[in-house]
Amino acid sequence: MKDIGFNNIAIIGVGLIGSSFALSLRKHGFEGTITGIGRNRDNLIMAKKLSIISNWTSSHESGVEDADLILLASPVDKFKGIIEKIQPNIKRGAIVTDVGSVKADIVSSLEPLMPKEVFFVGSHPIAGKETSGISAASEDLFHNTKCIITPGPNTDREALKKVRRLWEALGSETVVMSPEEHDFIFAAVSHLPHVVAYSLVNSIMEMDSNILNFGGKGLKDMTRIALSSPDLWQGICSFNRENLLKSLRYFSTSITKITDFIEASDWEGLQKEFRKGQKARKTLESS
Amino acid sequence: MKDIGFNNIAIIGVGLIGSSFALSLRKHGFEGTITGIGRNRDNLIMAKKLSIISNWTSSHESGVEDADLILLASPVDKFKGIIEKIQPNIKRGAIVTDVGSVKADIVSSLEPLMPKEVFFVGSHPIAGKETSGISAASEDLFHNTKCIITPGPNTDREALKKVRRLWEALGSETVVMSPEEHDFIFAAVSHLPHVVAYSLVNSIMEMDSNILNFGGKGLKDMTRIALSSPDLWQGICSFNRENLLKSLRYFSTSITKITDFIEASDWEGLQKEFRKGQKARKTLESS
Repeated sequence: MKDIGFNNIAIIGVGLIGSSFALSLRKHGFEGTITGIGRNRDNLIMAKKLSIISNWTSSHESGVEDADLILLASPVDKFKGIIEKIQPNIKRGAIVTDVGSVKADIVSSLEPLMPKEVFFVGSHPIAGKETSGISAASEDLFHNTKCIITPGPNTDREALKKVRRLWEALGSETVVMSPEEHDFIFAAVSHLPHVVAYSLVNSIMEMDSNILNFGGKGLKDMTRIALSSPDLWQGICSFNRENLLKSLRYFSTSITKITDFIEASDWEGLQKEFRKGQKARKTLESS
Repeated sequence: MKDIGFNNIAIIGVGLIGSSFALSLRKHGFEGTITGIGRNRDNLIMAKKLSIISNWTSSHESGVEDADLILLASPVDKFKGIIEKIQPNIKRGAIVTDVGSVKADIVSSLEPLMPKEVFFVGSHPIAGKETSGISAASEDLFHNTKCIITPGPNTDREALKKVRRLWEALGSETVVMSPEEHDFIFAAVSHLPHVVAYSLVNSIMEMDSNILNFGGKGLKDMTRIALSSPDLWQGICSFNRENLLKSLRYFSTSITKITDFIEASDWEGLQKEFRKGQKARKTLESS
């Protein structure tokens, strides 16, 4: 690993992303200390036993004291409370980053909470899974994926560079955009699809609770993300409410349009909609 | 292969399903003749070259003359025209079956067209792919999948048995139900999801035509079936219009319910919906 400029890394939230981050650091040759911080002691003990982390603590305050990089990897609705708690304990010169799926609210609420000479840089690795926890962790989770970095107007340029270098060292391609642009895009390509997946399962169950199992590979693929944590996704939805509502309006309009074609037996119109969707889907890098 | 009681099998439509059917027959030891019938000569020549079929013809009439089993594997909206054309040429005692994704309309329109002592039995192997054509064919396509057999009130019981045995010989688990029940179930678990996948892609493109590529694995999985043939799926939608409209109404109601929760910032209500979906999705055999 090229020197990434950090020696002590604290990971708050040792779940799928947090522990994959730790494994990936080690894979790429990081030799410093990785401290795991969280509330679930059994989970932290397991992470230590598996050599995912160097040491662990349930105390956020003491856990971050030596850290020159703090990674927030707990659910997004916990970030603010955590920062308020650890604020006096963060070392001068430390960088705080996160892996949250929403950014505008996070950046604008966390930045003002940073102590003097501590810098926050928001990031979002596009590397989730529908499974969670350290048992699903992988040292290659970030390999060949995008990581969105979302500087605000006050973000320190040096800290931004260091956070980019960090994710790139783990195999990610970094993309820099504003928190607002991020939230607009991910409402459409991630938050909306999650809502649709839950909703699709629910409406099939509503029609007949015994038929879900007749679905083939197509239905399984489509609804896999409905296995995601309801708690986590409710949080994401609340933090990106406006954009998600906008996405839902576009989606409802499209469903209504298609329904109208079927209602009117306008098969040519329907096929045109399908062709449009197929053509666009074909542009996605790999199927 | 246990003797399946057929020696000459004609496959009308040598695409993904038709050629996988042929490959699977051979894999399971079928030694009789397999005649491929279709309009695309190059495709049939390729299928012969790859030993998928024994011989081929573009003439539906002559192609079925010796067949004791005729498999309709072309798009569903072609079935009726094909049967009307080959009707005088079908051998006495022959069995006609199909692989169409809709059944009520097919069974009720094809059954009366069968010549004396020719029996129709509708079937639907739940084994599609979003890819098509012989290049995507697989001898294992039907292995460990369900195949729905849909007898009507007049279906010959012996013919039904033979068709069940046939699919079971190829590794499928057969499930017998009425064509109407089939169409209700598959509107919900297959036709609705396809419509939703096309619609999801379209609404994202509508929001911004440059953002689809930011989608991660979740979006790719969810929209993979939007790669399916628009022609084929428009046909399926038209043949199952009533049930599909019913499914779409349930789905729209569910999307509206979720939108309302988000609109009202009722995060508890939203999480309850997500939990319901996650719980149901967990019951699906494999993820």
